[in-house]
Amino acid sequence: MKHYKIEKEKGRLWLIEDAYSPLFEEKTEAIFAQCNGYMGVRAAHPFLSIEEKRGMFLRGAFDKAYDDEATELVNCPDVTWFGLEINEEKLHTDSTKMLSCERRLDVLSGELQIRYVFELALGRKAEVECRRFASADDRHLFLQSYRVRLNGGEPGDIRISTGINGQITNSGVSHFHSVSERVYDREIMESIGKLKKNAVVVLTQCTSGDSKPSKTDFVLKRRSIYGTYCFDGVIEVEICKVSVVFQTGEMDGDKACGHVRRASEKGYDRLFHEHVSAMRKFWEQAGIRIRGMSVEQEAAVCFSQYHIFGMTPYDTEEFSIAAKGLTGEGYKGHVFWDTEIFLFPFWLHVCPEQAKRLLGFRYIGLDGARKKAKDYGYKGAMFPWEAAGTGEEETPLYAALNIHTGKANKVWSGIKEYHVTADIVYAVERYYEVTGNWKFMEKRGYEIIFEAARFWVSCAEKDEKTGMYVIRDVIGPDEYTEHVDNNAYTNYMAAFCVKIARKYAVLLKKEKPVLFEALDKKTGVSGELDTWERFLKGIYLPQPDRNGIIPQDDTFLSKPMLKNIEKYRSARMKQAILLDYSREEIVNMQVLKQADVVMLMNLFPWLFMEETVRKNVLFYEKRTVHDSSLSYCAYAQASAHIGDREAAEKFFENALFVDLNDNPLVSGDGIHAASMGGVWNCLIYGFAGVWYEKGKLSVRPHLPDTWQEMEFKLIVRGIRIRFCISHQGIIMESEAKLESSIHVEAEGKEYEFQGYLNISRKREGREEWNKRQREPSLTWMG
Amino acid sequence: MKHYKIEKEKGRLWLIEDAYSPLFEEKTEAIFAQCNGYMGVRAAHPFLSIEEKRGMFLRGAFDKAYDDEATELVNCPDVTWFGLEINEEKLHTDSTKMLSCERRLDVLSGELQIRYVFELALGRKAEVECRRFASADDRHLFLQSYRVRLNGGEPGDIRISTGINGQITNSGVSHFHSVSERVYDREIMESIGKLKKNAVVVLTQCTSGDSKPSKTDFVLKRRSIYGTYCFDGVIEVEICKVSVVFQTGEMDGDKACGHVRRASEKGYDRLFHEHVSAMRKFWEQAGIRIRGMSVEQEAAVCFSQYHIFGMTPYDTEEFSIAAKGLTGEGYKGHVFWDTEIFLFPFWLHVCPEQAKRLLGFRYIGLDGARKKAKDYGYKGAMFPWEAAGTGEEETPLYAALNIHTGKANKVWSGIKEYHVTADIVYAVERYYEVTGNWKFMEKRGYEIIFEAARFWVSCAEKDEKTGMYVIRDVIGPDEYTEHVDNNAYTNYMAAFCVKIARKYAVLLKKEKPVLFEALDKKTGVSGELDTWERFLKGIYLPQPDRNGIIPQDDTFLSKPMLKNIEKYRSARMKQAILLDYSREEIVNMQVLKQADVVMLMNLFPWLFMEETVRKNVLFYEKRTVHDSSLSYCAYAQASAHIGDREAAEKFFENALFVDLNDNPLVSGDGIHAASMGGVWNCLIYGFAGVWYEKGKLSVRPHLPDTWQEMEFKLIVRGIRIRFCISHQGIIMESEAKLESSIHVEAEGKEYEFQGYLNISRKREGREEWNKRQREPSLTWMG
Repeated sequence: MKHYKIEKEKGRLWLIEDAYSPLFEEKTEAIFAQCNGYMGVRAAHPFLSIEEKRGMFLRGAFDKAYDDEATELVNCPDVTWFGLEINEEKLHTDSTKMLSCERRLDVLSGELQIRYVFELALGRKAEVECRRFASADDRHLFLQSYRVRLNGGEPGDIRISTGINGQITNSGVSHFHSVSERVYDREIMESIGKLKKNAVVVLTQCTSGDSKPSKTDFVLKRRSIYGTYCFDGVIEVEICKVSVVFQTGEMDGDKACGHVRRASEKGYDRLFHEHVSAMRKFWEQAGIRIRGMSVEQEAAVCFSQYHIFGMTPYDTEEFSIAAKGLTGEGYKGHVFWDTEIFLFPFWLHVCPEQAKRLLGFRYIGLDGARKKAKDYGYKGAMFPWEAAGTGEEETPLYAALNIHTGKANKVWSGIKEYHVTADIVYAVERYYEVTGNWKFMEKRGYEIIFEAARFWVSCAEKDEKTGMYVIRDVIGPDEYTEHVDNNAYTNYMAAFCVKIARKYAVLLKKEKPVLFEALDKKTGVSGELDTWERFLKGIYLPQPDRNGIIPQDDTFLSKPMLKNIEKYRSARMKQAILLDYSREEIVNMQVLKQADVVMLMNLFPWLFMEETVRKNVLFYEKRTVHDSSLSYCAYAQASAHIGDREAAEKFFENALFVDLNDNPLVSGDGIHAASMGGVWNCLIYGFAGVWYEKGKLSVRPHLPDTWQEMEFKLIVRGIRIRFCISHQGIIMESEAKLESSIHVEAEGKEYEFQGYLNISRKREGREEWNKRQREPSLTWMG
Repeated sequence: MKHYKIEKEKGRLWLIEDAYSPLFEEKTEAIFAQCNGYMGVRAAHPFLSIEEKRGMFLRGAFDKAYDDEATELVNCPDVTWFGLEINEEKLHTDSTKMLSCERRLDVLSGELQIRYVFELALGRKAEVECRRFASADDRHLFLQSYRVRLNGGEPGDIRISTGINGQITNSGVSHFHSVSERVYDREIMESIGKLKKNAVVVLTQCTSGDSKPSKTDFVLKRRSIYGTYCFDGVIEVEICKVSVVFQTGEMDGDKACGHVRRASEKGYDRLFHEHVSAMRKFWEQAGIRIRGMSVEQEAAVCFSQYHIFGMTPYDTEEFSIAAKGLTGEGYKGHVFWDTEIFLFPFWLHVCPEQAKRLLGFRYIGLDGARKKAKDYGYKGAMFPWEAAGTGEEETPLYAALNIHTGKANKVWSGIKEYHVTADIVYAVERYYEVTGNWKFMEKRGYEIIFEAARFWVSCAEKDEKTGMYVIRDVIGPDEYTEHVDNNAYTNYMAAFCVKIARKYAVLLKKEKPVLFEALDKKTGVSGELDTWERFLKGIYLPQPDRNGIIPQDDTFLSKPMLKNIEKYRSARMKQAILLDYSREEIVNMQVLKQADVVMLMNLFPWLFMEETVRKNVLFYEKRTVHDSSLSYCAYAQASAHIGDREAAEKFFENALFVDLNDNPLVSGDGIHAASMGGVWNCLIYGFAGVWYEKGKLSVRPHLPDTWQEMEFKLIVRGIRIRFCISHQGIIMESEAKLESSIHVEAEGKEYEFQGYLNISRKREGREEWNKRQREPSLTWMG
């Protein structure tokens, strides 16, 4: 975290960029973005700056500009720009002397503060301070305070210009068919940007407390509107800018002005107070307190949770989490497996209602997934590799041209990266496990599972030699190997999917015949039962070889290793390997972009022998470039799980700083959402070793030596349980009375609770614990 | 010209901006633009800068992005950006210390040179020099040289990045449906941007002479491609960047790479030499040499001619001259009356072939004009107030919303500014007068005139009281008065149009019956003759009142004067009056945006008594804000014409510096094309007093006292005549033998020439001349 400093004060935890840093501009804009689950506003300077990539993204504001372009999250009109003129001297970052610049994000409240000192003509100085937040209390509200102070005590004329700029594009692609602006009552500016399906409306009002401007001019330019507020002979002035942002259909347009006005009357500080109260509720549920962690690590953990909060559509199941959250144009705001596998667990244990909404998004998208399956000649539902606002596949068929051959590079992940269809089922099953919400299962969950199972069985083939079911020509999570047969992750996940599908189908048929019949009508499940049974008996699940290594796919182990892997692991540029090798060459080497087999082990922590996990982590990590941000957290979790603390800490450190590192080349187009979920998974599933499955809550911690205590809360079966884990002891307390009994296993010791859960036990010595060899629990495959 | 310095050296005449000036950035980009009649490239810095408005415009590259947007000249992919890294230090204008910056335009060659000195780490210095030109020899060619030199003699690693950036938009509106890029042979980058009707293709190659780069990386980003050229351990490096730019259909795409390669082989200096040779031909024909003029004035005159050259579509009649040339997004690249009234005279006398092409554009657009007339319930052809690539009206029906009422402001000029239809006829008639090209008239000219006459007669009404034909509810050239009856300019021009239409019709009917019949079929002219005669007898032409003032319209003289006009005349912001008064209030005052009645007097220099001209110039100028760039040149020409040297010089100075003034708020969206033509009109028709009409070439000079001699060439009746006018004498010589005899009147003395024209006479004393009172020659109304 060399580029960002940390500062901790009462109730605040600051990430700080303490100098004007064009090289880091795009990165810092993304990392310091204000996000509240509805909007994400990049932390651009209030002034125009050379390397800026200003942006505001709204959950659900998708548009497809042209046939040749993908559907993407629209970069919406900007409200963060402020022009400043002092005594007729216009401030520009490329000509005005900037004596200091500090930009800081409070990862607890999400408030951004930026401070500058400028040198004016005759050596006079001016301080400028900006503050911003996207309200967690009123999600359509974006607040800014802009304060200018002339140093030296001599008053001057200050002119501040600000408004709404609809000239913003997605890297040159404009989505707005038209942008129209007006001013209400010489107070409130409005901009309406029309998209194909709806419109983005921004209203904004500037107030300046008692120091009223001597004059206010409103200027309309093409696609932009701004007001210039003139203050004559003043030493200090502060403007509070309230912006209300919504899409047509979300808010009553006629009432929006009143909304702005009421907010303006409250002012920045009171609205910030309301916002902080809302954020506090989040932290009360989600916060993880770790004594002994460095302040950098603490900030990084909070940073990831702040962004998980900010990236998750807060009130709807119409949309899900984008791979870059709401912080940039990267991946076009699309939803990947990242949501279900990396981010879902957090919400599952912190706010199951939100977790349900994420699954709801997939349920709504079932028709799109059915269509995709049909298009590719399969049955059931084949979920999109990339989704936007619907269930339809949004992965472009072709990426940019190969610049040298002029031929289009086909994008195979939309066609061949099947595993997402099992990943979603995995999340559904985890949801059912942890919440026991059978209503959800009956309304939606079973249907997803059955349709996914139908897909998997339809895409498996019977191998003529072995007579086993194989899944050919796929891409696993590791995208550096394409068109492989029997990717271990994919086959195991497919088997898991079909297995639970069959289990539920048999159960429902017997115990809920009416429901079963209804589901049968939708999915034809009754005709599948025998096929599924045959599939489960015959599916090929790669087993550890004589060295204990589970082959990533049929050919992986026979390929030569990449010799100079260190070069690419240490390269500042991601995927630098593509500069030296063609994609085809990479596919034909033992080189991984990210964890693949290891991911599987994380998802089923008790499926493989500990020794197998250890060997595979070691084996595959040596071959992994970590070019995916999903990689470090996965290795960290696996290493923590098997008690390899040294490796776990190393990988965890890398995962924590996937965004916060000092490499200016990463995160510019948005933060790495999945990695933030991965950090949580590593903390809770890895270091704290908490896992709930089959009615049993087990706790097998492997805290790093330097950590004295971990304290956090998880919701299991509707009850929030407080965990306090140290090297000395484990405390677990439920906040409320359990509805049914719960089985707890803490470091091998078993408990059964009814009513309140309450454990407080001393831990046995670590060495002793480590000596114990775990038995694999292959129960679900039994 | 406080902002721009002047420097004159052998064969060069430089406009210089000698400091980095963000405030003037947009203005200087437009003024210093490289234009060659095919392309116009704004003179943005090679680095990104805060206030930049980078742009390249191609004649004919029009597109309409959305229904709500107007058809406009597309801002095309940029080739002028260069990234620079020296010893891993990346240069940014907002963080790297710039010790000096100088940007200069040679108005003779159009070459741009930009020089910087930067301070690097450890106090080392680097010089950067850019040169650019748009070739006049090969109009699809844009050349750049980019040279970096490390001062101090210590070699370093220099990385230069440059390519083609298709992310450029028209102020946030993207026109390209897709932009695709590739690289040929690791040498030539290509970008193809698809518009609705065609595509813009840019190819670019960088070569570096003997100092080959150690490595070249090509990077593809969304809608942009660039190469990074790495030079290790060097002190100096120079890159020559050749760009070939065309629209599909203009060049064989397959051969374009060869085109680039051949140009690269020639290199910057040789191509520049070829370009200068082509420019020299232009100057030989168009140059005006004035002894005694200040170097500032000389530069400004050459500046205006350079841009007239650069703004005029060079090889086609498919397109005409845009109001801002090819230098900015202003007026969306649309064609106004500016072309025929202000710019046409230059080409008429410098290159009649080009003048004919400009009229050809209107002829091609006749169908559009017929449609417009029909749509508005008139006959004949009603030419568009704003045209783009066709004859159809492109003036938006509504301008931006009134920001305070939220209601759309109707744009009346497209509906009510009729006079353009007479202005075009005026240019046709002038063309015929000066060239005698009867073939053009038979093929196209008469048809334009007849259709225009039909329009005029159909839109005139018979006044019930007076029984005269009146033209009601129009806008004259002065757009600060709308919806007026009997605008003097409009009525006179309409009468002129119908008068010559009837003259030609009668003549053709008698002498060329076959042609007349053909034209009759197209225009129904035979049925119009009586109507036209009635119209000409009855048309109301406002006459001077008892004060000698020709009323601008029926109500103008009865309105109150604007009291504080000086406030708006001296305001830096154009149309500042609109901040204080509503459009309706302005319409109801005696206040003009620009010359109106005075324009009429310029077009018919012998129509009114000199005294009448004098009175009207004085009267209306007092009421003129000069908020239109067409104003000063018109007043200058009129004042020169009547020998009011003092006023003429004052207005001429203002006209000369319409773009080159030190007001950063003007010209940012493009130079003022019409004013540049107006400067020429003022010089030739005003100061030199040259006029050719009805077979008579008259010369009645009014040189400013400080000018010793004016020397220039004009083409009249196909023969180039050299003029040399001083206070002492007048010399006129034809370059070739006259085809027919010519009548010359030089300061009242009459000559008749056959064969070679040759006059060399001493001028009579000025006082004597001034005493002579001219008789008005109302011949054409006789």
